[in-house]
Amino acid sequence: MPHSPDELRALVEERLERLELWPALHGQEESVRYSLLVGGKRVRPVICLATAEAAGGSAEAALAAGCALELVHTFSLVHDDLPALDDDAERRGQPSTWKRYGEAVGVLAGDALLAEAFRLAASYESTAVARELAEATLGMIGGQYLDITDSAPDEVTLHSLKTGCLFAASVGLGLSAAGVPSDRQGPWRSFGDELGLLFQIVDDILDGDGYVRIHGADGARRFADEAAERARARLNEVVADTSVLREIVDGLAVRTA
Amino acid sequence: MPHSPDELRALVEERLERLELWPALHGQEESVRYSLLVGGKRVRPVICLATAEAAGGSAEAALAAGCALELVHTFSLVHDDLPALDDDAERRGQPSTWKRYGEAVGVLAGDALLAEAFRLAASYESTAVARELAEATLGMIGGQYLDITDSAPDEVTLHSLKTGCLFAASVGLGLSAAGVPSDRQGPWRSFGDELGLLFQIVDDILDGDGYVRIHGADGARRFADEAAERARARLNEVVADTSVLREIVDGLAVRTA
Repeated sequence: MPHSPDELRALVEERLERLELWPALHGQEESVRYSLLVGGKRVRPVICLATAEAAGGSAEAALAAGCALELVHTFSLVHDDLPALDDDAERRGQPSTWKRYGEAVGVLAGDALLAEAFRLAASYESTAVARELAEATLGMIGGQYLDITDSAPDEVTLHSLKTGCLFAASVGLGLSAAGVPSDRQGPWRSFGDELGLLFQIVDDILDGDGYVRIHGADGARRFADEAAERARARLNEVVADTSVLREIVDGLAVRTA
Repeated sequence: MPHSPDELRALVEERLERLELWPALHGQEESVRYSLLVGGKRVRPVICLATAEAAGGSAEAALAAGCALELVHTFSLVHDDLPALDDDAERRGQPSTWKRYGEAVGVLAGDALLAEAFRLAASYESTAVARELAEATLGMIGGQYLDITDSAPDEVTLHSLKTGCLFAASVGLGLSAAGVPSDRQGPWRSFGDELGLLFQIVDDILDGDGYVRIHGADGARRFADEAAERARARLNEVVADTSVLREIVDGLAVRTA
């Protein structure tokens, strides 16, 4: 029996809680842990682990990759919250990292999260995990640049960079961790793209921007349902037990937070 | 004939100038290139390439690792210069990255340099390059934390983290790029440690702090000469043509900038 999404989330949470950070970080460790453990749905690692299991690998073998994804996601939040960027003093009801530890330590906390993510990614035998994680991170940074400079061609491009890249990589890293050869990854990767799009449209519905601003609330809902439908169709092309991934699609389609 | 240090520096400079950044960076690319090409002695990549050649590999095969080291070094400068950290408006006689492009783009430029460094490091078949680069980066960040929070046990520990880690990794990445097996790396790595120490003491002599403050100008000079002597002794233990590395030691011992 594959793990349920909740079981996978518990595995991720447990691993994050006892994550061994590099000792040379010294006192910087505290703000890194604070940033990481302040909360979060752990959606990206759960997708990574579920993909790995569906593809015939083990959730445990994908844990390092999953945690690396969560560290990159957390890095992006910590830097986005900085006064020079979004200037957010709160994150998940708690002081944001820079607010809690000061701006300088906030910058370094993001840096350390990113470097730790690559240390985790480089614990695999193949460099595919680190390479895909780096590419996704660069896409996110490109999206953030378009956002703060108000230079995105359109909101869809913007959010596909800011959100979609790391979502697609969540599926991709699960495949790498499970050792799925590149020429067998096609339908899985198409699924990852649709899943990222779904997450992004539902985000827009919850925030009332992006797709909602372009297509109205009903239009955005229709686009979300279509993306979910295409994600399920891609899973149908895969010869594997994809029931847990299907459950994740259903959950993402109707989420309210 | 192995390349001279100047020839190696030219190889690095040429590769950095035509470095292909990840397209999804979009407009963020400009500030990354600006940060990277505003100048620098390229000491770390030169050491990496010289080590690879001395160890029987090719300088060309070590170029990606060398550039990754320079990108990590540049990342650290870009973030250190931020108003929240050292608040430096100038770097190498030019506006620092944040001064030129604004603080938000400055934060993202450092992030992008770090992620690009790991993309380069992950272009090798072995994950050893990315892993060692991540560990060295985390040591640098730990050192920076001790610096800004004024919590270092002593200046020697501080600088060994801020400078020594990436220097030692410069030798280590050269060995990985040349495919030297771990059990043959001992004397080379001891050489790297002494080289990092030498660089750091000479830095202190040029800046009048650290070793100079503890041991006086003459004392610091003596420590530098002894570190250079030990670095040469470690090279003597290696069965290889280490003439270029020896030339680098001599140059670092007497440098004036």
